[in-house]
Amino acid sequence: MLFPKKKETPPPRTIGLLTDFGMADPYVGQMKAVLAKKAPACTVVDISHEVEPFNVAQAGFFLAASYVHFPGDAVILAVVDPGVGTARRIVGLELDERLLIAPDNGLLSLALSTTWAQSVRAYDFSRAVDAPDKVSHTFHGRDVFAPLAAWLTLGGDRTGLGGEIDPASLVAPDWATPDVSPGTATGHVLHVDRFGNCVLNLEAGCLGTPNQLALTAPSHTPLAYVTTYAQMPEGAPGLLEGSQGFLEIAVNQRSAAKALGLSMGDEITLTWEA
Amino acid sequence: MLFPKKKETPPPRTIGLLTDFGMADPYVGQMKAVLAKKAPACTVVDISHEVEPFNVAQAGFFLAASYVHFPGDAVILAVVDPGVGTARRIVGLELDERLLIAPDNGLLSLALSTTWAQSVRAYDFSRAVDAPDKVSHTFHGRDVFAPLAAWLTLGGDRTGLGGEIDPASLVAPDWATPDVSPGTATGHVLHVDRFGNCVLNLEAGCLGTPNQLALTAPSHTPLAYVTTYAQMPEGAPGLLEGSQGFLEIAVNQRSAAKALGLSMGDEITLTWEA
Amino acid sequence: MLFPKKKETPPPRTIGLLTDFGMADPYVGQMKAVLAKKAPACTVVDISHEVEPFNVAQAGFFLAASYVHFPGDAVILAVVDPGVGTARRIVGLELDERLLIAPDNGLLSLALSTTWAQSVRAYDFSRAVDAPDKVSHTFHGRDVFAPLAAWLTLGGDRTGLGGEIDPASLVAPDWATPDVSPGTATGHVLHVDRFGNCVLNLEAGCLGTPNQLALTAPSHTPLAYVTTYAQMPEGAPGLLEGSQGFLEIAVNQRSAAKALGLSMGDEITLTWEA
Repeated sequence: MLFPKKKETPPPRTIGLLTDFGMADPYVGQMKAVLAKKAPACTVVDISHEVEPFNVAQAGFFLAASYVHFPGDAVILAVVDPGVGTARRIVGLELDERLLIAPDNGLLSLALSTTWAQSVRAYDFSRAVDAPDKVSHTFHGRDVFAPLAAWLTLGGDRTGLGGEIDPASLVAPDWATPDVSPGTATGHVLHVDRFGNCVLNLEAGCLGTPNQLALTAPSHTPLAYVTTYAQMPEGAPGLLEGSQGFLEIAVNQRSAAKALGLSMGDEITLTWEA
Repeated sequence: MLFPKKKETPPPRTIGLLTDFGMADPYVGQMKAVLAKKAPACTVVDISHEVEPFNVAQAGFFLAASYVHFPGDAVILAVVDPGVGTARRIVGLELDERLLIAPDNGLLSLALSTTWAQSVRAYDFSRAVDAPDKVSHTFHGRDVFAPLAAWLTLGGDRTGLGGEIDPASLVAPDWATPDVSPGTATGHVLHVDRFGNCVLNLEAGCLGTPNQLALTAPSHTPLAYVTTYAQMPEGAPGLLEGSQGFLEIAVNQRSAAKALGLSMGDEITLTWEA
Repeated sequence: MLFPKKKETPPPRTIGLLTDFGMADPYVGQMKAVLAKKAPACTVVDISHEVEPFNVAQAGFFLAASYVHFPGDAVILAVVDPGVGTARRIVGLELDERLLIAPDNGLLSLALSTTWAQSVRAYDFSRAVDAPDKVSHTFHGRDVFAPLAAWLTLGGDRTGLGGEIDPASLVAPDWATPDVSPGTATGHVLHVDRFGNCVLNLEAGCLGTPNQLALTAPSHTPLAYVTTYAQMPEGAPGLLEGSQGFLEIAVNQRSAAKALGLSMGDEITLTWEA
């Protein structure tokens, strides 16, 4: 064969970004400037930068609900990092081929708890702080995490900065592991969305199809178990198997948070006919 | 000819995005993750995601004012969809080569009413809900519209999901068709921008160059007819042929909305010397 | 040599964007649509669009703190333009290879005052208003600046729209040049960030390592001179050599703005042992 088939240029790899830096300050832009410099052919997709400052649980939900929608070879960088400047590890969680990078503060725990990946591996990337460039003490998102994500996206050796580690060694906060037993479940409100839906740390389907379902704490109300808003009478609350992979307490055309007095971080209890 | 001129790689096609999902929740990011997966070489341009929830009229203005600035072969996806999960159609509006995709709830009506395109065609895309992937009942933006936009951007047959339809069959709300006659016009405030300018559903130029112009409802005040802020005395209101293709009630260096007590959705009446 | 080595396709050039247009209105999206049309292979990186309307000083800080993180050949467009429609110049500032474009209203002055670039040149681009396309009188960001940035990014001649000018001829407001002498410095709060840190117009390092440092106006309090939050006792204020290239008044785990009653625009005085 004289003329070998020309190799196709691979499509640009995708880098997901999730932070609590907000959109007003120039911090996210500086991270993206670094990515544009170090991984110029990559596509950056923002998950959100409006995580409540330092709210690791909310960020953990955003990450767990979003990573499955990314291209199979995406690298997703999540920086909500109240411990910046302390000795906390920098870690990676590989779910099938996708790689999630975060400080080891529990941010990865909800994604790790999901049952959607066939293959799960974890890596220590803490040595990324020994970067060749000048590193500020207060903004590792730009100076450590962004160069690390660029390097890994371009094919850097995932075991080369600290080696493979046991996924079970990652920090696992209470809110990542709800307490589910026949007929009762205790969990947390991880996020209240724009429409007032209250997302729980309960994976969709984990209750089966419960009969006689009720919210019993912090307030008490019967809940329909539904997969669409239309299945709830207007104004009546339900437990919705929605679009995010986790159960949501919702009210058709109203804010469930307001109707039921729920806030982000609240512990809730559900009961049903076992 | 032995060596045919090598075909140039076409530049990446552009996908515009317009929603009412906000920037805090991870919903827009999940749509973009799907686009990155299914149309990896495309450029995504956000028009806005801060449309007031379910405000189809405001979204209709954002779309009509913006589509003309996109590349000639752009696909623009607009998802403000209070009817998600009901039988509303999914439709496309082709204005010259640009393709606008939306639920058939009036969102496309203002763009359709403009006089800027030479060629106008419409398509039914409702069969996009029969997608091969799992489709949630509550988030068609991510599960139906984003894959549809990717497929059409990559050259999918515009007539292949329901065929061509009469543009006049698209839902046409009142606010898309102002009532203009010699000497008087009744319209609506579609949007109040960051600076307090009140954009009307009146295409720039549709009044000619009116003399003795006045706002006569809901309040009464004379209006200068201008094309720059500098043409208005400071603090005096005017009807501005601005940058958005539609007439705006504006006050130089002040908020017209505050000065004249106007809000989004208000019906207004203008009179002038016929 | 029969077959010259094929030239590599250059990586896409980066265009930075900084405005006070906000994220709700469709204005930024329209600028990006123009960039996608005129420079389709470029990567656009948002620095921020939430500059306070018309606040040139805040934008000047965002630009000065961010440009160094962009790729070496980036073009950065900053549009905070209260003088749109007047005779103000449109200018470019070349710091090493990076090119910053803005209205000549002081926006570039803080970047010009920094000591980080080896090579500094300036250009008059005012003739960009004579663009071939229709130009609105009220939205030069979309109709003049975006096409100009695209043209320069694609290699347009930097001297071709008005020629090279003396960088010292750029508008230089008071807030760009703090008053520093041995033992005392007077400056301004250019920005209060999401965490309440108050960024000053004092380049990091410009005080040396001051002893007995204090804020003496508008309020009076001793300040630790630090490079990490951890060096400040919780609740105690410090002058932080942080990540932005400028000194910040900060309080560990609290808002310095609230604790010390500081606001954007305030003049402050620092004293130390000379």
